[in-house]
Amino acid sequence: SRNALKCNALEFENSLSFAVGKKFQLDDVIEAQQFDREVLSSIFDVAREMEKIEKKSPGSQILKGYLMATLFYEPSTRTRLSFESAMKHLGGEVLTTENAREFSSAAKGETLEDTIRTIEGYSDIIVMRHFESGAAKRAAATASIPIINAGDGPGQHPTQALLDVYTIEREIGKLDDIKVGLVGDLANGRTVRSLAYLLAKYQNVKIYFVSPDVVKMKDDIKDYLTSKGVEWEESADLMEVASKCDIVYQTRIQKERFGERIDLYEEARGKYIVNKDVMKVMQKHAVVMHPLPRLDEITVDVDTDPRAAYFRQAKNGLYIRMALLKLLLVGW
Amino acid sequence: SRNALKCNALEFENSLSFAVGKKFQLDDVIEAQQFDREVLSSIFDVAREMEKIEKKSPGSQILKGYLMATLFYEPSTRTRLSFESAMKHLGGEVLTTENAREFSSAAKGETLEDTIRTIEGYSDIIVMRHFESGAAKRAAATASIPIINAGDGPGQHPTQALLDVYTIEREIGKLDDIKVGLVGDLANGRTVRSLAYLLAKYQNVKIYFVSPDVVKMKDDIKDYLTSKGVEWEESADLMEVASKCDIVYQTRIQKERFGERIDLYEEARGKYIVNKDVMKVMQKHAVVMHPLPRLDEITVDVDTDPRAAYFRQAKNGLYIRMALLKLLLVGW
Amino acid sequence: SRNALKCNALEFENSLSFAVGKKFQLDDVIEAQQFDREVLSSIFDVAREMEKIEKKSPGSQILKGYLMATLFYEPSTRTRLSFESAMKHLGGEVLTTENAREFSSAAKGETLEDTIRTIEGYSDIIVMRHFESGAAKRAAATASIPIINAGDGPGQHPTQALLDVYTIEREIGKLDDIKVGLVGDLANGRTVRSLAYLLAKYQNVKIYFVSPDVVKMKDDIKDYLTSKGVEWEESADLMEVASKCDIVYQTRIQKERFGERIDLYEEARGKYIVNKDVMKVMQKHAVVMHPLPRLDEITVDVDTDPRAAYFRQAKNGLYIRMALLKLLLVGW
Repeated sequence: SRNALKCNALEFENSLSFAVGKKFQLDDVIEAQQFDREVLSSIFDVAREMEKIEKKSPGSQILKGYLMATLFYEPSTRTRLSFESAMKHLGGEVLTTENAREFSSAAKGETLEDTIRTIEGYSDIIVMRHFESGAAKRAAATASIPIINAGDGPGQHPTQALLDVYTIEREIGKLDDIKVGLVGDLANGRTVRSLAYLLAKYQNVKIYFVSPDVVKMKDDIKDYLTSKGVEWEESADLMEVASKCDIVYQTRIQKERFGERIDLYEEARGKYIVNKDVMKVMQKHAVVMHPLPRLDEITVDVDTDPRAAYFRQAKNGLYIRMALLKLLLVGW
Repeated sequence: SRNALKCNALEFENSLSFAVGKKFQLDDVIEAQQFDREVLSSIFDVAREMEKIEKKSPGSQILKGYLMATLFYEPSTRTRLSFESAMKHLGGEVLTTENAREFSSAAKGETLEDTIRTIEGYSDIIVMRHFESGAAKRAAATASIPIINAGDGPGQHPTQALLDVYTIEREIGKLDDIKVGLVGDLANGRTVRSLAYLLAKYQNVKIYFVSPDVVKMKDDIKDYLTSKGVEWEESADLMEVASKCDIVYQTRIQKERFGERIDLYEEARGKYIVNKDVMKVMQKHAVVMHPLPRLDEITVDVDTDPRAAYFRQAKNGLYIRMALLKLLLVGW
Repeated sequence: SRNALKCNALEFENSLSFAVGKKFQLDDVIEAQQFDREVLSSIFDVAREMEKIEKKSPGSQILKGYLMATLFYEPSTRTRLSFESAMKHLGGEVLTTENAREFSSAAKGETLEDTIRTIEGYSDIIVMRHFESGAAKRAAATASIPIINAGDGPGQHPTQALLDVYTIEREIGKLDDIKVGLVGDLANGRTVRSLAYLLAKYQNVKIYFVSPDVVKMKDDIKDYLTSKGVEWEESADLMEVASKCDIVYQTRIQKERFGERIDLYEEARGKYIVNKDVMKVMQKHAVVMHPLPRLDEITVDVDTDPRAAYFRQAKNGLYIRMALLKLLLVGW
């Protein structure tokens, strides 16, 4: 009967080298700027391990007993599901709040800080989406448990940036010496801005901006790239860029940014479409990425091309989030 | 220590004969027409096994490590809870999306196919409710994981049909040689239409339609029954039908179908009520069923009659859904 | 291989003395009046045990295999999360319904009783929040499984009352011979009314009411206290009360109760603020409590004072709810 006491599944897990590790150097995941090249590389190694975890294997129980709260002040089903799936793939549990605005409703008026102090009493980690830039940083300043920023208004969405870079590495095999075409809405796309920022950490990266005039990449990013020695140029010729690049990163033109100028939107929207013709000029090893959702900026007939990487990219979000949850909760 | 490695609960489960089985012959559950008599019978056998699974028994962990996504484009708390309870009774986990419309919002405009390709990266099976007829079939055509249709608009709701037939077998002990009275809104009731369809698979079934004139059973079903050699008749005399039937299947008159003709609704609604008087003429072994929710088409004083089977019927939904989840995910 | 069959984690748990116990004397938790002094004391003992349960310990699996449904007819994210966290801390699972009103929508019109009979088929315990006073009692009269009232309209919120008393015991070390100042909206605050009620069960308790004239404590509670021999007085001097009390229990002035009389609200709201000056006159061992959310009736600079007990109080809600779930589902 002493044997019976010893041999339960939980103790078993603890004996695994990767279940209890060295503390992750970050307390929270707030913005893409936190990550240097080395940390990125290590996170990607963990994400690769996550890809290999099988159902019912001990690895699938690394976070058993841990509780993640998804504190979403605005709905984002896609992002929320990805995080919740990640937590559950590692044996962890989830508390879901899709209507977190209620906490701070006009009538009640609780501060974000007070909400965080309450939720941290119920959970081990908070994944937070907010409509205000900087909210995640404020939450992290208050919380005694890790905060992951799942998007704060026009601000940051660091796990999207990480999964984009991870996808490039998975698909192309390297992050140095690559050519990346960023296409579509470069003015408003949080995604492409963060990606440009992270790519600057690598050697000999060349970036092409291909976008309708009304939604061009802004100067702050261009200046940043220049200051970091990253070569970039603007082009109006998607075919030529596609033929040269390792990555064509297409994005959706965001209708909601055009207000009543539907004419401008329609013009911008139809301008650069990734279709079979574009695929024909792309190199064999090159891939198309997209943060999703897409409208028709990539035609559906491209989906069956093995170089269409966007659904694999979405799936990589799962592995990156598994890796971050693991690292923040139990360390390396 | 090799012993210690061996004796975890997970391996233990794998040693059970019913945990890993022969593949279920269906990849998805889309419409009642998929099921022939033999498959129905086998599913019902599994549902019976499900009834016997006890808390903390190995059977309660058959789906440990599996993740079900409930992708509901319109709310249906009752159906959603039944599926989520089924999954959790088998040790599985759930990702909930009650506001799946957001995925395909006007502003963003993602196709159902793209949404499915994203969600299938996060889960092992998708239970889907949609406002458009045929949506589940489209999802299944795209998905590489099983899809269960939890209702698609005016179309199908196959798990409801299955639990209805299962309930008849459980309550009456047979599906051949039975008399069934379908009462209430037969024009708009998805439930009674599917049930009539499935009953046609059995021998010597007689169906009575009892409904207000404005909501009579439509010709397509009548013709179908005739073509299959199923005897049916219409009757205006609920008492007489109730005295002859094994099953009185009552349904709610759906107010929302009457638009501004409240007068017609009120007339239809009061016409055929199952009350103590009806129970008096019913046979001892006969039962009353109802898909719920009910208004006053069955009076509350009937609830304590042992022949009131509608809450047992709701509970059977749990077992049928457990059986389907088990079959689709780990086979027979 | 017989060994392998024996040593699974589930059997292991069953061997623990506290996993299966004597039945709890209450079937449901409906109102604060149910609890006498002895039962309160025993529940608090269990809550203390709950505080000590560690991640991955056998205690964290006491409710494995149990399913709690949160049936919320009006949203209350704070309360819902607290219950769901409690259930998950004990290894139990949760079915969430935040939009339970849908069940009984005008169009469908299902009774609460029918809804309960359906949900009890899917779960082992129901935590229910409703907009109508008395709804929880009606649910309990119908249900064959335990019901916990998580607030029913202007009626009861018994788990809040329990956690308040538990917090006093944890912070002050006793419930007899204490002085409690109830401050703020005493007319509408369900919390302070229940607390006054429960405090009457203890010896030599003195209560001070400090509130703006428009929201004074009502006579029913004053009469009740008097009938139980509890000393109370009204005061307009927060400083003096604070200097004498063991507990200063501050509450939010509820704007929604003032309708269009914003002027009255603003006057009431600013009248009694717990700030650094109040803390200065409070005794060393005394504490400030608040049911949260707060607006500015306690200034933020008080938060760092060790006597600010309100976030510990929120956390105690977790332990009280863990204790009640444990007691109702598996007994003492």
